[in-house]
Amino acid sequence: MIYLDHAAATPVSRKVFEAMEPYFLSDFFNPSAAYLPAKKVAADYEAAKATIAHAIGAKTSDLVITAGATEANNLAFTAINARGRVGDFSGTGVAPARRYGRSAPSFSVVTSGHPLKIPTRPRILYLVTEHDSVRRVAEQYGGEAIRVLPSGLIDLDDLKTKITDETELISISLANNELGTIQPLAEVAGIIREVKIDRMKRGIKTQLLLHSDASQALNLLDINVARLGVDLLTLNAAKIYGPKGVGALYVSHDTKLKPLTMGGGQEKGLRSGTENVPGVIGFAKATELAREHLNGNRKKYASWRKILLSELQGCEIINKKHTLDNFVVLCYNGIDAERLIFLLEEKGVYVATGAACAASKGRKSHVLKAIGLSDAQIAGSLRISLGETNTDEQIHEAAEIINSVVQSEYERIRHA
Amino acid sequence: MIYLDHAAATPVSRKVFEAMEPYFLSDFFNPSAAYLPAKKVAADYEAAKATIAHAIGAKTSDLVITAGATEANNLAFTAINARGRVGDFSGTGVAPARRYGRSAPSFSVVTSGHPLKIPTRPRILYLVTEHDSVRRVAEQYGGEAIRVLPSGLIDLDDLKTKITDETELISISLANNELGTIQPLAEVAGIIREVKIDRMKRGIKTQLLLHSDASQALNLLDINVARLGVDLLTLNAAKIYGPKGVGALYVSHDTKLKPLTMGGGQEKGLRSGTENVPGVIGFAKATELAREHLNGNRKKYASWRKILLSELQGCEIINKKHTLDNFVVLCYNGIDAERLIFLLEEKGVYVATGAACAASKGRKSHVLKAIGLSDAQIAGSLRISLGETNTDEQIHEAAEIINSVVQSEYERIRHA
Repeated sequence: MIYLDHAAATPVSRKVFEAMEPYFLSDFFNPSAAYLPAKKVAADYEAAKATIAHAIGAKTSDLVITAGATEANNLAFTAINARGRVGDFSGTGVAPARRYGRSAPSFSVVTSGHPLKIPTRPRILYLVTEHDSVRRVAEQYGGEAIRVLPSGLIDLDDLKTKITDETELISISLANNELGTIQPLAEVAGIIREVKIDRMKRGIKTQLLLHSDASQALNLLDINVARLGVDLLTLNAAKIYGPKGVGALYVSHDTKLKPLTMGGGQEKGLRSGTENVPGVIGFAKATELAREHLNGNRKKYASWRKILLSELQGCEIINKKHTLDNFVVLCYNGIDAERLIFLLEEKGVYVATGAACAASKGRKSHVLKAIGLSDAQIAGSLRISLGETNTDEQIHEAAEIINSVVQSEYERIRHA
Repeated sequence: MIYLDHAAATPVSRKVFEAMEPYFLSDFFNPSAAYLPAKKVAADYEAAKATIAHAIGAKTSDLVITAGATEANNLAFTAINARGRVGDFSGTGVAPARRYGRSAPSFSVVTSGHPLKIPTRPRILYLVTEHDSVRRVAEQYGGEAIRVLPSGLIDLDDLKTKITDETELISISLANNELGTIQPLAEVAGIIREVKIDRMKRGIKTQLLLHSDASQALNLLDINVARLGVDLLTLNAAKIYGPKGVGALYVSHDTKLKPLTMGGGQEKGLRSGTENVPGVIGFAKATELAREHLNGNRKKYASWRKILLSELQGCEIINKKHTLDNFVVLCYNGIDAERLIFLLEEKGVYVATGAACAASKGRKSHVLKAIGLSDAQIAGSLRISLGETNTDEQIHEAAEIINSVVQSEYERIRHA
């Protein structure tokens, strides 16, 4: 098996699994319990959070553990028009449209079946190529999409045009999950800084936050929240050889959120529920390993990428530049990529057409559309994402198999 | 170590751990991916859900997997005044007070800083002894508490008095997490049925749902959703020797909920995010083992409970009847139970004063207060919860140790 879909899922590393094991079997205590073995578990949990936080240049207290990136993205958006402070539940809950309308200068109530109309300009801007867990929440809040250039990079001019005095949150993933495109977040943060200075001068107190979904990036980029200039950053254990069902949201100390759920008050009241101790221990170990092997892996993936780009025939490279080292996105003009995936699977090569959750619904990629690909190009597009299960031999073998399958497909079509 | 706090946390069974292992290491694929190994994982995930669903007499499609009981409880409450259908996100998000007020016959808008006033009678009733993850959400929605009798059982007369034409949801845990008290849900369901018939006759279309948090009960009671008469039921893997961070909400097919988070649309749009496959596989295995050993374990725990009740001296039994077989709640009058826990820990016996999440904050138990215990009695109360880590020998030894520690404490106090 040659697995080339590490952007969809990664196995849990053996070392991560071994780190989790005792917390399943013997150190299983409830971190909130009063006796010492439980307090030791609580301390280990905090230490694990510290490992994750420090890896991105943050403090342990800035991190909220979630059940994955989707929850973290959803939690980030509660920053919009958040009233009161963390732990103050008055008027809480996330009712975007409503909360939205409520504090707007004027609003109209539709008599039945419809939410309040949103009279003001969007409070949220998000990159058009974002993952569904950002896009759907942003849309829900009446957010406006920012365009990307054909390179997949954010159109900074479009961003500048769309920021208004009402804009509160800008959400831009650090690296795109279909293209691997790395966005110039520091540049965006620079623009935001200018807007904030301008607002300050004019006495406008509306917050302006930068959120980034970095799910795909923690094992491929050197992430530092201060350098990136983000207020909110989403992390995901499952994409970096850690367990599924664990993620985190970095929240800068001056950003106020509201809990999505209420209960025992864990994670400073922002995320109630008994702590997923083994999951977080595994997340921390995966983070540690990711940082340790960051440079070596990047070099390895970059060389593999180079090999694929030079050996693969009959295709157009979609993500030419500004991409994670492990992403190769190709377009085979006139070929049905879904059929290709099936044929490649028969030869033991596993690739994808786009985000797994979108692909499973047979939807066309909104990402490939946003960078200007035609329907035919989108239909012929493949995503290869390299990873730790791969070897040098596999890369050459994969290139050979893909070339041969593609060639037969082109021949079959020519003779059809 | 004699661990007597299985209500706070249980270890993951070796068999559960072994069932999960391959899904961490080799069958790690994203269930939404297009190739066969991923589809096999998706099928295994569905089969695991089926195992859990069938254990409570439900269908796989009735189950929404969550990150634990807290999320499941919070999700259950989105049934209140849910508009539109599942997957219809218009006006979605959970803003209890606001949604509440919006569809009320009349409402008043406070100019700033306050949520809309709630003019109508409570739509939610909940048992006063519920866990924080029910209580805090219910309070948030302006819910009203139902009293319990000194036995810990629901005061059915109080329930009947408090049900009004506005009541939409009644939340009563199947077994209490501090006392183990098993509530007569079928009787509650009978009352609800009568109210519904009466409403139907009078042309009142307001829904009336019964939700139950069964977190503590799946390995100790034979649960069947139809027999219990519940519309919503919360389950928790972490309390039945499964992994932390996994739970489920049973949702009867005619009950409409709203998602707490949005994204890739997993779990029929009600709970987005890549599926926690190993977690759910583990949950299913734990459920299977729980059902398999249900009767044997109940008998064993009942006999241990009997031994403790007969051997423990100088205490009052708080949960005399109607309790899970593994719960023994005691009160040592005049003794500080927190000190007792500390002294017992020194002798290798681990017990609790109440719910771990409440205890960690030094709060007095609202459960013990609700059954009419005085502050002094609450201060002297211990919760023993038996489980699979225990042996016959441990029970006798524990009784001996507790007796000896308690005796020294009484003597110390007498001479102080």
